[in-house]
Amino acid sequence: MRFGVNHTPSVGWFHSWLDFSPSDTARDMEAIASLGADHVRIFPLWPVVQPNRTLIRQSALRDVASVVDIAGSFGLDVNVDALQGHLSSFDFVPSWLESWHRRNMFTDPDVVASTAAYVEALAGAVADKPNLLGITIGNEVNQFAHAPHPTPHEITAEQGHAWAAAMVAAARRGLSSGASGAVGLEARRASAPSPASGTGSRPGPLVTVAQYDAAWYDDAQPFGPEHAADHGDATVTHSWVFNGSAALHGALGAGSVRHGEYLLQLAAAWNREPGRPNWLQEVGAPTNVVDPADAASFTEQTIRHVLDAQDVLGVTWWCSHDVSRSLADFPELEYDLGLFTNDGRLKPAGEAFAALAHAHGVHAAADAPPVPRTAPATALVLDDVLPDGTTRHGLRAECAPGGRFAAAWLELAERAPDGRGPQVVLRSRIGDDALLGGRGITRCVEVPDDTPTALLSVAHPATMA
Amino acid sequence: MRFGVNHTPSVGWFHSWLDFSPSDTARDMEAIASLGADHVRIFPLWPVVQPNRTLIRQSALRDVASVVDIAGSFGLDVNVDALQGHLSSFDFVPSWLESWHRRNMFTDPDVVASTAAYVEALAGAVADKPNLLGITIGNEVNQFAHAPHPTPHEITAEQGHAWAAAMVAAARRGLSSGASGAVGLEARRASAPSPASGTGSRPGPLVTVAQYDAAWYDDAQPFGPEHAADHGDATVTHSWVFNGSAALHGALGAGSVRHGEYLLQLAAAWNREPGRPNWLQEVGAPTNVVDPADAASFTEQTIRHVLDAQDVLGVTWWCSHDVSRSLADFPELEYDLGLFTNDGRLKPAGEAFAALAHAHGVHAAADAPPVPRTAPATALVLDDVLPDGTTRHGLRAECAPGGRFAAAWLELAERAPDGRGPQVVLRSRIGDDALLGGRGITRCVEVPDDTPTALLSVAHPATMA
Repeated sequence: MRFGVNHTPSVGWFHSWLDFSPSDTARDMEAIASLGADHVRIFPLWPVVQPNRTLIRQSALRDVASVVDIAGSFGLDVNVDALQGHLSSFDFVPSWLESWHRRNMFTDPDVVASTAAYVEALAGAVADKPNLLGITIGNEVNQFAHAPHPTPHEITAEQGHAWAAAMVAAARRGLSSGASGAVGLEARRASAPSPASGTGSRPGPLVTVAQYDAAWYDDAQPFGPEHAADHGDATVTHSWVFNGSAALHGALGAGSVRHGEYLLQLAAAWNREPGRPNWLQEVGAPTNVVDPADAASFTEQTIRHVLDAQDVLGVTWWCSHDVSRSLADFPELEYDLGLFTNDGRLKPAGEAFAALAHAHGVHAAADAPPVPRTAPATALVLDDVLPDGTTRHGLRAECAPGGRFAAAWLELAERAPDGRGPQVVLRSRIGDDALLGGRGITRCVEVPDDTPTALLSVAHPATMA
Repeated sequence: MRFGVNHTPSVGWFHSWLDFSPSDTARDMEAIASLGADHVRIFPLWPVVQPNRTLIRQSALRDVASVVDIAGSFGLDVNVDALQGHLSSFDFVPSWLESWHRRNMFTDPDVVASTAAYVEALAGAVADKPNLLGITIGNEVNQFAHAPHPTPHEITAEQGHAWAAAMVAAARRGLSSGASGAVGLEARRASAPSPASGTGSRPGPLVTVAQYDAAWYDDAQPFGPEHAADHGDATVTHSWVFNGSAALHGALGAGSVRHGEYLLQLAAAWNREPGRPNWLQEVGAPTNVVDPADAASFTEQTIRHVLDAQDVLGVTWWCSHDVSRSLADFPELEYDLGLFTNDGRLKPAGEAFAALAHAHGVHAAADAPPVPRTAPATALVLDDVLPDGTTRHGLRAECAPGGRFAAAWLELAERAPDGRGPQVVLRSRIGDDALLGGRGITRCVEVPDDTPTALLSVAHPATMA
C-alpha cells in the first residue's frame, strides 16, 4: 500500500504559488520523504493558473512541473489536483466565474470547455514526468454543487456525470499529449503492476475524481457514489471524522478510527469491476473533534484499519505542515493538521504515520510481516434500489455516521474474528456472480431489522445474518 | 491641466501582475508618454497583493514600485489605486471575503482593519517615489455597496463615511511612512503649486476616493457626493456616457460630450472649500454607444469642454490599450477603449487626445493660447435639502442624465456666450458668501419650473432666471 501526504506548503500556504520558491518546496519535500512516504498530492490554485477563461499561464504550469521534479528528487511521486476550487475553507474561483460573470460551473458550455482546457493543459504540463502519480480533477469540487455551500451551482446527477466525464477526458488528453505521447503512457500503464498487487510499484498516471463525503452520506448531493466509481481509474474517498463520526463514537471509538476503512469499503461497493483501486486520498485528525493528545493514536489506528481493506491504492494523509499562525481566518483545526509543525518539527501523529509507512509502505523491508491482501470474504448488503429498480432515496443517509447501515457495518466489523471490516455489496448487484467472485465475496449478510439508527449502534447486540 | 491615461497593460491585461514584465511595462509607458501625457493611473489586483487577510506580499508591492519607477523613466507620474476590486466587469475579491468567509467589506472590523493595512502598505511602498501622483483607495469601490451589484455589501451612508475615512487615513499613514517620512511629504506638498494653478507642476501625493457615477445619480447608492467631496485631497469623477447620456443625446450630442464637464461641475458643488481640485479620473468613448468612427470627435469635444471647467486637476483617459481579443468574457466595448490598439497602433482617438495633451498639457509650449482658468461666474442652484434640512430624496435622480437638473444645466451651458457650462451651487450653501466668493460665483440661477425631465431637454426653450 502506498503512503502519501497532502502537501500544504509551510511558507505562505497555497498562496506560495504567487511567489514560487524551489528551495521552500524542496525543504518541505525532504521532510515529507523522511516520513517514509512515497508520494505527495499538490494543489495549484485555479485562478492563479487560469485568471482569464482563455488565459492559461504557462509560467504557472512550469511552476507545477518544477514541484513535481523537486518532489521526484526526494523519491516522491506526485498527484496533481487541478480545480482548487476549495481548500481548507477557502474557495478560489476565477473572476470569470463570479459576480457579474457568474455562470454554472458544471453546465455552462463555455465554462466547461475552458475548465477542460485548463485540466488538459495542467495534465499535459506534467505528463512526461516519470514520477507523476496522477491527475485529480480537483479537490472536492462537489462542494460547489449543493448546500451547504453558500452559493451553490446546482446541477442534477446526470449533469454531474457529464461534467466528470468531460474533465476526465480532458485529463487523459493532457496525459497523452506529453512528449512521450499516448504510446508512452499506455506502455507505462501496461507494464506497471496493479496498484493492489502489494508490490508498491507505481502504476501509470491515474486520473481520479475526488469528492467530499456528502457523495456517500447526503441524498441531496448531486455528485454521488457513481460519480466516484464510474469515472477515472480509482475510487477516491476523503475521510473526515468531524462529519459526526467522532461526535457519535468518540475520537478514538471504532466508528472514528474505522471511518477511513468504512468509507473505502462503502465506496468500493459501487465499483463495476473487481480490483478497481480505492484511494483514501485524504484523512486527518481534526482537533475540533480529536484531542491533539489523541492525534497519534487516531492516526495509527486509522491507518492500521485501512491496511485491512482490499484493493487499497494508498492512504494520503492530510497534511504535511500546520498552517502558520501568521495567516488569518482558517478554521482553528487547520492550524494543527500537519504531521509537521509549521516550522518543521515532527509531531506525534507524524511519528505514528512514519512508523507505519516505514513498516508497510513501498520502503518496507522485504521480510516485513505481510498485511492481508485477500479481500474480506463477508459483504454487508446495501439496499440501493427500490423494488421498481429506482435508486432509493434515504440510502445515503443510512450510510452516514449514525445511520442504520453504518451501524450495522461497524457492528459486523467489530465482531469479525480477524478484525477486518466487511465489504459492501449493492443489492442490485448481488446476483452478479462474476462480480462477487472477482471481489472475493463468499458470504452476504443482511442488515438486521433491529439495527438502531442512532448513537448506540456500536454497543447494540445485533445479530448479523 | 494634467493629461493622463489609465494604464491597461497590453500583454495579459491586469493579470500581467502574475507575470510582471518590466519590458512589457516599459513599452506601454513609452507609448503613453508619446501622447504628451504626464501621468498614468495603475491598478494592482487586490487578491494578488493580499491573498490572505494577514499576508501582504512584499514582492507584489515591489512590482508596483517598479511600475512607478519605469513610468518615471518616461517622464510619467503615477497614481496607484489600491482596492481592485472591480475592473472592466470583473470583480477581484480575496478569498477571505467570499463564499464561506463572506463578511461585509465595509463594516466588518477585521476586514476593515486588514483592508486598511493593505492600503497603508501599498502607499508606503511608493511613498518615496518622486513621480508619485497619488493613491486612490480603489477603483469605484462603491460598486460593491449596492445594487446593481449581484451580491452587494449593503451599508448606510454613515458607514460609507467611516470606511472612506479609515482608508484615507491608512493611505496617509503609508505616505508618511516612506524613507523621507512625513516631513518630506509635507515639504513636497507645501512647495508644490496648486494643481489648479495651470502650471502643470506636480502637487504632493494626493489621496483620493473614486466612485462610479451612481454616487451622483442614484439616490439609493450609499456612497454619495459627500463621500467624494469630504474625503481625500481631490474630488474624483468617472464619466461614462453609457449611463444614458449617449442614449438621450446621441454620442456627439451636447449631453454626451459635455458629460465629463457636467460631472466635474456637479461633484464640485459638494466641495466644502473653494479651490479643491476636481479630477476627471476616468472618461472614455465606449463603443456600445459611441460609434468607433465618432470616438476621436467624442474625445476631442469631451476634453475641450473639460478645459472649460475650473479647478480641474486633470483628465485621465480610459484607457491606454485595447484589451486583447485573446482574452475572453469582457463586455464588447472593453476591446476598443484604448488610445492604442492592443498591438500598439495609435488610434484616431489617441491622436485627438495627443493633440490636446500637447497643446494644453504640461508639455505645452509657453506661448500656447491659454485656456480659461477663472471659474464660470454663473451657478445653477441644486435643491439639496428639504425645508426641514434633511437631504431630499430624488435629488440624485434629478441630476442623472435626462433628469430635471441635468437638463437645466445643459440648457444653460449650451446658451452660455462663452460656451462654458455653469458651476453648481447647493441651495443649503447659497448663503455662504465666503464659499461663493471663493468659487467666483457671482450669479445664481434657478432651475426653471417648466424644465422637462425627459428626452427633449436640450431643445426646450426654457428661460433661466
